Amino acid sequence: MRFEINKDKLLYHLLIAQKALSNKTPNPALQGVKLDVEKDALVITTSNAEISIKIVVEDASLSVESEGSVLIPGKYFIEIIRKLDGQMVHVSHVEDNLIRIEADHSDITLNVLELDDYPNLVFKEKDESVKINVRTLKTVIRQTAFSTSTIENRPILTGVHLQIDGKTLTAVATDSYRLSRKTITLDAEYDPMNVIIPGKSLEELMKILENNQEDVTVHFDQSRVLFKYANVSFLSRLLEGNYPETERLIPQEFPVKITFNKEALMLAIERASLLSKHDSHNAIVKMTLRQDDTVTIASNSPEIGRVLEEIHPVDEVVGSPIKIAFSSRYVLEALKSFASSEVAISFTGETRPFVMTGEFDEAMLQLVLPVKTD
Amino acid sequence: MRFEINKDKLLYHLLIAQKALSNKTPNPALQGVKLDVEKDALVITTSNAEISIKIVVEDASLSVESEGSVLIPGKYFIEIIRKLDGQMVHVSHVEDNLIRIEADHSDITLNVLELDDYPNLVFKEKDESVKINVRTLKTVIRQTAFSTSTIENRPILTGVHLQIDGKTLTAVATDSYRLSRKTITLDAEYDPMNVIIPGKSLEELMKILENNQEDVTVHFDQSRVLFKYANVSFLSRLLEGNYPETERLIPQEFPVKITFNKEALMLAIERASLLSKHDSHNAIVKMTLRQDDTVTIASNSPEIGRVLEEIHPVDEVVGSPIKIAFSSRYVLEALKSFASSEVAISFTGETRPFVMTGEFDEAMLQLVLPVKTD
Repeated sequence: MRFEINKDKLLYHLLIAQKALSNKTPNPALQGVKLDVEKDALVITTSNAEISIKIVVEDASLSVESEGSVLIPGKYFIEIIRKLDGQMVHVSHVEDNLIRIEADHSDITLNVLELDDYPNLVFKEKDESVKINVRTLKTVIRQTAFSTSTIENRPILTGVHLQIDGKTLTAVATDSYRLSRKTITLDAEYDPMNVIIPGKSLEELMKILENNQEDVTVHFDQSRVLFKYANVSFLSRLLEGNYPETERLIPQEFPVKITFNKEALMLAIERASLLSKHDSHNAIVKMTLRQDDTVTIASNSPEIGRVLEEIHPVDEVVGSPIKIAFSSRYVLEALKSFASSEVAISFTGETRPFVMTGEFDEAMLQLVLPVKTD
Repeated sequence: MRFEINKDKLLYHLLIAQKALSNKTPNPALQGVKLDVEKDALVITTSNAEISIKIVVEDASLSVESEGSVLIPGKYFIEIIRKLDGQMVHVSHVEDNLIRIEADHSDITLNVLELDDYPNLVFKEKDESVKINVRTLKTVIRQTAFSTSTIENRPILTGVHLQIDGKTLTAVATDSYRLSRKTITLDAEYDPMNVIIPGKSLEELMKILENNQEDVTVHFDQSRVLFKYANVSFLSRLLEGNYPETERLIPQEFPVKITFNKEALMLAIERASLLSKHDSHNAIVKMTLRQDDTVTIASNSPEIGRVLEEIHPVDEVVGSPIKIAFSSRYVLEALKSFASSEVAISFTGETRPFVMTGEFDEAMLQLVLPVKTD
């Protein structure tokens, strides 16, 4: 095995593949980057327990002298390629267990890992697949995945629930204290589909998707989902089980509705979170709609001090005075997911979930449960 | 006590004062920022066990309604001022133990700390002081303080040794494995002076000194040193004891001298450090001057692999082949301290310290002890 390639091109693809590389794994083979050098292509594969990535590099700078496969310790390989001088890099298999990397005045040899220990990953495409625009997919992930649970006592809630029905795709995530729901319309009709994808997998996928207008094709089977995009294949396991019924959690009647400037509301909540005894992440703040239609955001930590913020809603307030307490982090994360500069919060009652919507965030809803205080 | 000031001006000065604020301290009063509001000035004071900072703010935006002193929890105060909206901020002492901060639509109260517990800090200037240009002082610190020891078994080596003799100031730092020495010429003659300033204090000072051409005046007494600059007073304790004799460590004869392009040498050493078993911080690399006057930088970690880098010296090599091993971190940190783009390394022998000098780094020397290898 021996090939030459532009160093920056190789690094670019390795940094994508790195997203599926784990440093801590019971299987040392998974610390490796697998290179399959074919006649006209370099295939880079990485995998951890959750996700696997395969990239087929067919760059004009690639010149293959001899074909072959090798498993290289990922951390060292990527750091070496990152730090090399010169434009081109040569990689060759010099002995059974040694790889040689040459560039400019550098001559580096690395012990390889045992290729036979590498899992057999199947990146097979299905006949039927779903097409989604890249930007739309990134928006769906950005507006839902943050609401997945990070604790493992209910594993199903660490995933995003995706449902396809005809031309409609609905994504829902909840950690049981808040919920995010986004619906999009697909370009074609599809058979019904119902899967739960780990939130972390989707967040890694989001990082490597680039903001151009190409489509991602999504291939589902019983236990895995394959996202194909440009020369990248991204495979994730699915979560098994039934996702809880979430529709009934969402109130249908909202006697109170207040529209805010999103930035002003976020800054007020951030300031009210500053005086939390532990850290501002777990701060509880109180929102009060007063008789005169101004809103206050307040917090009180007897040992430290108190904050009182006054906000004037941007639109006419619907409903009568209400007082509600919530986790500042949940509301801030929900607000951050909006593209709209104005966000409406609708309330059903002081102990019922409240719902956030935005004019320019079509078919997207963020729900947060209030916190009981004395 | 009640005053009003431009919020950004207040924040700017608080961020300087923050350098002497400690979050972990046995004395809770030291977690506070002390404000002394005088007729035409706001005086900000902070202190930890090592350093104290006093800033006299006489800004045009400052308007004092009533004078007084207060000790405010520093962490919360600075975060609040950072996050406030609006141009101006009002600060007032509302009750014995409460401070009120008002800006735009924010109304915040903070419990204060007990002012009586605050230490009595003396920022007194001496009649005699030493004047140093700001840029020169920053260069002296940048080129020496990194060589101080960070382990406490020989506390004296955690300091930088400053000696003044006539118009000459010499700064020396060593952790006993490497040594940095910088000499500058002062604008005037001074009485002899011999002090040891904690390296960490100097590094904090360096961060707040701004790169304009103003002078810093330095006032010494038995146990402390006061740096005065613009409206800032920076006080550090001195280390007690006798600094070791270091002159005799520096070889005087150098049979071998090699001049390198600094960047090329640093990159080669960095690459050779990549394959270290633990972390690249503790990597040992070998430098070899070959018969043909090329130099190789090499490392070998049997479990991971090996690196061989070839460098062509930029100038004619003096001397005969030599092989030396060293800590890559020590040599990289030394090289980084040079302004020169070419650095000469002079060798006495394979087990003797080697010395780095640069054409554009006048009266500066970096010394590193080699490491014994098999």
